[in-house]
Amino acid sequence: MTISVIGIGLIGGSLAITLKENGFADTIIGVDANTESEHKALRRKIIDEALPLSEAFERSQLIILATPVDSMRELLPQILDQVEDQVVIDVGSTKELLLDRVKGHPKRQNFVATHPMAGTEYSGVEAAIPNLFDEKYTVFCDVEDSNPKAVELVEALYRSIPMKITYLDAKAHDIHTAYVSHISHISSYAIALPDLEKEKHEGRIFQLASTGLSATARLAKSAPDTWIPIFRQNRDNVLDVLDEHINTLSKFRTLLIKKDFEQFHELMEEANHIKKILE
Amino acid sequence: MTISVIGIGLIGGSLAITLKENGFADTIIGVDANTESEHKALRRKIIDEALPLSEAFERSQLIILATPVDSMRELLPQILDQVEDQVVIDVGSTKELLLDRVKGHPKRQNFVATHPMAGTEYSGVEAAIPNLFDEKYTVFCDVEDSNPKAVELVEALYRSIPMKITYLDAKAHDIHTAYVSHISHISSYAIALPDLEKEKHEGRIFQLASTGLSATARLAKSAPDTWIPIFRQNRDNVLDVLDEHINTLSKFRTLLIKKDFEQFHELMEEANHIKKILE
Repeated sequence: MTISVIGIGLIGGSLAITLKENGFADTIIGVDANTESEHKALRRKIIDEALPLSEAFERSQLIILATPVDSMRELLPQILDQVEDQVVIDVGSTKELLLDRVKGHPKRQNFVATHPMAGTEYSGVEAAIPNLFDEKYTVFCDVEDSNPKAVELVEALYRSIPMKITYLDAKAHDIHTAYVSHISHISSYAIALPDLEKEKHEGRIFQLASTGLSATARLAKSAPDTWIPIFRQNRDNVLDVLDEHINTLSKFRTLLIKKDFEQFHELMEEANHIKKILE
Repeated sequence: MTISVIGIGLIGGSLAITLKENGFADTIIGVDANTESEHKALRRKIIDEALPLSEAFERSQLIILATPVDSMRELLPQILDQVEDQVVIDVGSTKELLLDRVKGHPKRQNFVATHPMAGTEYSGVEAAIPNLFDEKYTVFCDVEDSNPKAVELVEALYRSIPMKITYLDAKAHDIHTAYVSHISHISSYAIALPDLEKEKHEGRIFQLASTGLSATARLAKSAPDTWIPIFRQNRDNVLDVLDEHINTLSKFRTLLIKKDFEQFHELMEEANHIKKILE
């Protein structure tokens, strides 16, 4: 099968590597607004060819949309306008606004909305790696609006990686990703900023950065051009979860002020339950 | 040299493994309030012998105090009361209150305050691992109050691991660790709690937990019995940094409310500078 990947960055590039390696794709065509990225992807043999969108489109049975989520909202309707029997998927971190955009499109059934839940703090084609997705979950959204044959093909694609599949409606997906991913990024940027400030004025901070900071500030390396569109599209959910997070921090703050370390201890024990779930 | 390690947990146990492995210690004597921990440490051959404090003390040239920081404040003056020419070090995450406690003690010079900046989210003797400290920094505090010969011996100990050494006064140390370590732990507990709540009511959250959450919530696995004494002893600095962190988050919140994504983007770019520093 020939697959076109539009946007050859961390996610698109890593999918390209994996689907070529495992034989699900015979040929990967890359499409990227940045020709330097196309060249790098060719040199790294992540893609077999780089083509303009329209030509890539004609040659492919499956199109993977892997651009930042704001570009997806522009590109997806244009792509569906040209679809004959190709299957189109996106791999974005937000779903409600994207699906609103193609609601009622005559080719809506050819589109399957998916979100492979994996990533790193790095971005661009340089960041593409094999095995990024192994054994992780992909969320399929609103599958009832897609052609069952198309869904079946895309399920086969993700199972070939191999990934596990779960199904959510777009609204629930966007709330859940605010909890498990988007808030973590905001928190990380907010941990990094005062430390950078402190370092600038007094130095030494980063000499001492050990386990603590390298865990919680790691995501602060993430690319604003990827994440601003996500925060923009999922603003209301992110705000809800951010409020909840600030409230929890304020609760800790109050306990510190009151020196109520007994209650603080109880909350920490509760948080410890994350052990059972997070590897 | 015979070294006693008091408190055979993540830090004490890992130091014991390393110092035995690299030959700095011929014999490691373990002392732990929990006899089950002593037995585990013996079975894992992390320690050569388990003895009560007073006997361990007589046999050792160097004593490493690696208990939770509240117990350190109790134990250190008692230990110094018995010191003849032994050298005593602590490896705790807070320094001001501990050093206040032994200020003016006739044997203060035999004590060297150190903080090897490394760790994991796990605790207890089960968590002790080799190579935990390799190439990380150890902070020496207020070395002018210690006997130069004692400082030299302890420098040799850390260099044997090998670790790099840096020097700070206790006050600066406690401020810096609030920034690079303590706030990260509070943030992590505060990220984990609403997710656990959401999971309890609606499920699915943890199926989707990917890079984001596993980075930022990892430290929420940490032991309250280790961390409550640290937060208690470093309360004022932790409160300052927590306030700063809540303010930064509130700034992000305001930008989301105002949909000022341009300013949001700028702050994220600023936070990206952490790339240059954090591995």
